[in-house]
Amino acid sequence: MVRTILGVMLCLLFAFGVEAEAQQSLNLMPMPAKVQMGSGQLVVDPAFTVSISGHHEARLDRAVEIFLTQLRGQTGMPPIDMKVTDSATATLVIQAAGATKDVQELGEDESYRLDISISGARLNAPTTLGVMRGLQTFLQLVQTTGAGFAVPAVSIEDSPRFPWRGLMIDVGRHFIPIDVLKRNLDGMAAVKLNVFHWHLSENQGFRIESKKFPKLQTMGSDGLYYTQDEVRGVVAYARERGIRVVPEFDMPGHATAWFVGYPELASGAGPYQIERQWGVFDPAMDPTRKETYKFLDAFIGEMAALFPDQFFHIGGDEVNGKEWDANPKIQAFMHAHGLKDNNDLQAHFNQRVQKIVAKHGKTMLGWDEILRPDLPKDIVIQSWRGPDSLAQAAKQGYRGLLSSGYYVDLMWSAERHYATEPLSGAAASLTPEEQKRILGGEACMWSEYVSPENIDSRIWPRTAAIAERLWSPQDARDVNSMYQRLAAVSSWLDEFGLAHNSSYSRMLRRIAGTNDIAALRVLADVLEPVKDYTREETAPAPATSALPLNRMVDAVRPESTTARQFAEAVNELVAGTAKPASEARVKTLLNRWRDNQVDLQPQFEKSLLLSDVAPISQNLSALGAAGLAALDYLDRSEAAPGAWVAQQLALVEQAKKPQTQLLIMVAPSVGKLIQASAGQASSSSAPAK
Amino acid sequence: MVRTILGVMLCLLFAFGVEAEAQQSLNLMPMPAKVQMGSGQLVVDPAFTVSISGHHEARLDRAVEIFLTQLRGQTGMPPIDMKVTDSATATLVIQAAGATKDVQELGEDESYRLDISISGARLNAPTTLGVMRGLQTFLQLVQTTGAGFAVPAVSIEDSPRFPWRGLMIDVGRHFIPIDVLKRNLDGMAAVKLNVFHWHLSENQGFRIESKKFPKLQTMGSDGLYYTQDEVRGVVAYARERGIRVVPEFDMPGHATAWFVGYPELASGAGPYQIERQWGVFDPAMDPTRKETYKFLDAFIGEMAALFPDQFFHIGGDEVNGKEWDANPKIQAFMHAHGLKDNNDLQAHFNQRVQKIVAKHGKTMLGWDEILRPDLPKDIVIQSWRGPDSLAQAAKQGYRGLLSSGYYVDLMWSAERHYATEPLSGAAASLTPEEQKRILGGEACMWSEYVSPENIDSRIWPRTAAIAERLWSPQDARDVNSMYQRLAAVSSWLDEFGLAHNSSYSRMLRRIAGTNDIAALRVLADVLEPVKDYTREETAPAPATSALPLNRMVDAVRPESTTARQFAEAVNELVAGTAKPASEARVKTLLNRWRDNQVDLQPQFEKSLLLSDVAPISQNLSALGAAGLAALDYLDRSEAAPGAWVAQQLALVEQAKKPQTQLLIMVAPSVGKLIQASAGQASSSSAPAK
Repeated sequence: MVRTILGVMLCLLFAFGVEAEAQQSLNLMPMPAKVQMGSGQLVVDPAFTVSISGHHEARLDRAVEIFLTQLRGQTGMPPIDMKVTDSATATLVIQAAGATKDVQELGEDESYRLDISISGARLNAPTTLGVMRGLQTFLQLVQTTGAGFAVPAVSIEDSPRFPWRGLMIDVGRHFIPIDVLKRNLDGMAAVKLNVFHWHLSENQGFRIESKKFPKLQTMGSDGLYYTQDEVRGVVAYARERGIRVVPEFDMPGHATAWFVGYPELASGAGPYQIERQWGVFDPAMDPTRKETYKFLDAFIGEMAALFPDQFFHIGGDEVNGKEWDANPKIQAFMHAHGLKDNNDLQAHFNQRVQKIVAKHGKTMLGWDEILRPDLPKDIVIQSWRGPDSLAQAAKQGYRGLLSSGYYVDLMWSAERHYATEPLSGAAASLTPEEQKRILGGEACMWSEYVSPENIDSRIWPRTAAIAERLWSPQDARDVNSMYQRLAAVSSWLDEFGLAHNSSYSRMLRRIAGTNDIAALRVLADVLEPVKDYTREETAPAPATSALPLNRMVDAVRPESTTARQFAEAVNELVAGTAKPASEARVKTLLNRWRDNQVDLQPQFEKSLLLSDVAPISQNLSALGAAGLAALDYLDRSEAAPGAWVAQQLALVEQAKKPQTQLLIMVAPSVGKLIQASAGQASSSSAPAK
Repeated sequence: MVRTILGVMLCLLFAFGVEAEAQQSLNLMPMPAKVQMGSGQLVVDPAFTVSISGHHEARLDRAVEIFLTQLRGQTGMPPIDMKVTDSATATLVIQAAGATKDVQELGEDESYRLDISISGARLNAPTTLGVMRGLQTFLQLVQTTGAGFAVPAVSIEDSPRFPWRGLMIDVGRHFIPIDVLKRNLDGMAAVKLNVFHWHLSENQGFRIESKKFPKLQTMGSDGLYYTQDEVRGVVAYARERGIRVVPEFDMPGHATAWFVGYPELASGAGPYQIERQWGVFDPAMDPTRKETYKFLDAFIGEMAALFPDQFFHIGGDEVNGKEWDANPKIQAFMHAHGLKDNNDLQAHFNQRVQKIVAKHGKTMLGWDEILRPDLPKDIVIQSWRGPDSLAQAAKQGYRGLLSSGYYVDLMWSAERHYATEPLSGAAASLTPEEQKRILGGEACMWSEYVSPENIDSRIWPRTAAIAERLWSPQDARDVNSMYQRLAAVSSWLDEFGLAHNSSYSRMLRRIAGTNDIAALRVLADVLEPVKDYTREETAPAPATSALPLNRMVDAVRPESTTARQFAEAVNELVAGTAKPASEARVKTLLNRWRDNQVDLQPQFEKSLLLSDVAPISQNLSALGAAGLAALDYLDRSEAAPGAWVAQQLALVEQAKKPQTQLLIMVAPSVGKLIQASAGQASSSSAPAK
């Protein structure tokens, strides 16, 4: 029996021994292009071996070594087990047809074919890159079984939909140490992302050592920067995982940290200090002085040698032009050169910088703002504006990347990111040739509100849904399947040392000042941080980079699984399609929420960080009570009195409002229950997710 | 109000604002020599500063840097907060009177005085070493409070009881990577241990690079060894934390791994292979050949230069002598030199090795077996035999260390380690001068059954109780206080990256093959691995170094907190002193155990690693039912029928037997309940802890 299933949850029968095992799902993410289920399973035990045939290169050996280390970690095997062998009867036979490039290129072939039968597995790929991707698929297939560990018999043919699948990490606003970056590179490789976009300079920090201009880091970083040796280490680490590293040096704006050491680069009088708050600031490079370009030539030359990748990101976003307006020399320059506004001036700057970037052998990349027809067609636009902006660029012959819709700092649901399609809107009606110019996209981790402690929880697991959007066929859109696989992938990512799950309890324990966080967790599990830029907009005082990120809003997850599952159960209940178990589950949760305030109350006064949250806990308790009462009306098939309904819905509206930058995500579902108890259809709107 | 409390739980009143806060305990471990409580608390917030006055050295700056990193980690503050300042009004003013030695010496002064008031803190010490110890005390005092974070007002005078407080890690039987060692060094520093004893060579592996004899590592380690650069890194890392590093190269036995590359060192014909099983093996160095000593001279010289510490451990334990007996040349040598038995021959070897060690400027250290009056009095004996053996050595003028009673691989309770006193037995009646020769002790982590994944859980938190025994005054013996503080210290050690807590869930998830481990955890929480050497003795097949350590026996904790607390509650109940809450707790637990089998049953067939445990789960379920029935008799004040009691006690006896190398630690307490229900006094014996 062989069947191909795409974009839906994959089910298969294991034949183990003579006994058919229960149906199990394949928790692959991103979903491969083509999956054919076989029958039976291949046991993965200490005698597991790998042989490497075909084209041989050091990078392939290293990929296999990384794979075996990971496989041993997942199964708890010691390092002297699971060996590489020359034998043709190895458990896993790897064959690569040819060599990878010395510097990984955009569009280099990442396809692979993985065939697993009960007697062995074969992984074939054009190059080591495809082998790397296939090995991650293999790791995702490993399951605890009645035979120990095993992978199911399956044939997979796979290749990515887009050649550029990235994750940007902003290390400027908050410095992120090397070890945290490395574990995130592991996570990227695990879900087949292939570009680490390293946002290295910002108003709040210049994060890399320049040997030519050392005051950049010594005066612009609070001592928080990467040495060039560390950078080389990250680039090598990424290469071992099939990941390109694209550096970004944002200019002419977002550059205050440069000016602390080199005020002559700026358009204002200076002196400058590292910015401590968030937002768009006035300082900008002076695009009219020759010395600016001389500096950039030397600096870009230094960085171009350090970062082997073909692409070089110059930022180019959010210049407010105030320093330009205020500088008479710049105004005179604009007049003399017929530059009619600041956009023209920035375009002039970009043209000159592009020539420098090109001189050093690199292709320029920048945010939407850099797009002007006077730049050569080989530059790439990264869009925070959306697919329409990308489509416009593509029509003009420019290549582009989508990042709008993939900003993981905005605390959206995985579903919403997953629904963000690069070839949608105006991009959907591009010609095939134009569509090819849309290279893919990048998840963006802007770091106003992330620390080394909680950054993983903002990136993962939601970025895996973005990775699937960029790798898998366009028709992989089943949200239920996505969430089920996302949960499995999230646990699997723990094995790479990512802290997105482990940091949660740790932060809650600190907030509570005790290990007894059962009640706090009940509350935290239904909360999410406010969405989009609400945190900034609702802050009681402007946040700074010195602000501790140790509050509930920093600890709770971007997306509440409890709230999502509660909403599903309530929807079924209201629609009359609920199973008894899900009604019981709704009741259990409502009871727990109602009673939780009593358990949590004694802890509030012991912790400042917790006392913050007291009103939210009271609201949750009230929601629990209201939901139970509504359920009671429903159970008795009795319409709730109008006055009661109105009163309870007012309570729900109150509970929906953000408090201390947190949202109670179950409030809308409780509202639905109340409306249903009145015999009304639900018209309650959910908070933006 | 000032009071001094020692060896008991410390209580204090916080005066916060106008409102007195609830009593809180100081969770210090090891308990300082002298504690005087003040009133009020010192707030620890982002503006926290440290100034360094008095004697200045780089090691002190680094100690403060490590402290601030840790303090930021505990409180969730960014690295640009909490600065070092020159101001005399710093929050914490540190003053060291003088310099530390270039190479940390045995007995170097570690004392400190810490005074905390509501307006600031002062830490005074003779040297940086005392500052390091005092900073750890400060970190242990940090609490989440209604004001954010704070330390209580307190005055502490502290110094260690013993100058040698060590942890030995055997990296020979299982290789332990550098990052795992480093986090354990952090844990050691946290509880004021000051010697890392690095057991670097074993029958199963030679774990360090020798440039003079590279076949030691290339042929004797499976590729699992430390480079000399890595070793220097560990030594430097330890020095930054006030920890000496003493290397051990076990000889003439426990040395098979040396002989794989250099068979000529051995007394047999060879060839040799790395041992894969555990136990005592025949291969031993040939003590009769000049070349052996020439090799050791060159090798010890190389290692003496790499390890700056004064002491050099030559092992010297467990030589079975079989290779010596079988070698006619060796027999002839013994005859010619008047060596009447193998002990004499080993003593001859030790004398020659001692001269080599001394020639390279080091003091020799070895296990009990090396003690012979013909060795100079400056050598040190490490005793796996006990305080009597130490006392014997001390009477002869030798210095000694206690390790008997501190073997953490034997899975004893913290209480039992805590009760192990170096100055007990014959050592208690030594003269004060002789007692001074007892330098302290070392916890020993022999690694037959530990992997990088679970080693932390075997070392921590129990080693903190040993650390207290070696640091704190002899009269610190309150077991309840110890357990309460141990729980707090265990969580605090999480902050150093130790995995003793986090590895538990991870391993249970792997065993279950699912994230749904609620039922499995109920079972695992009451289990412990078998004690002493029972695991080896009861293994169905001889264990090898290739055996995965991923079973329940590898995951469950050495000491079950649930079982300990259950035993306490049952004892109260049986004695008639139970509070209603603890009776309810007993009932809740018994109910949970009875019903747990139903929840766990469906998971057994899905996992080989779990199916192993099925009979234990059935036993726990039966214990739960029996306990509930007994409780019912007790509640009704009705004597249980004799036949029923006999039947249930038989069940308890059955459940006490080890199964798959696991013990159900609550079985004896359930037995007590049953006996009480019969109106009998309890005579049930607990399994060895």
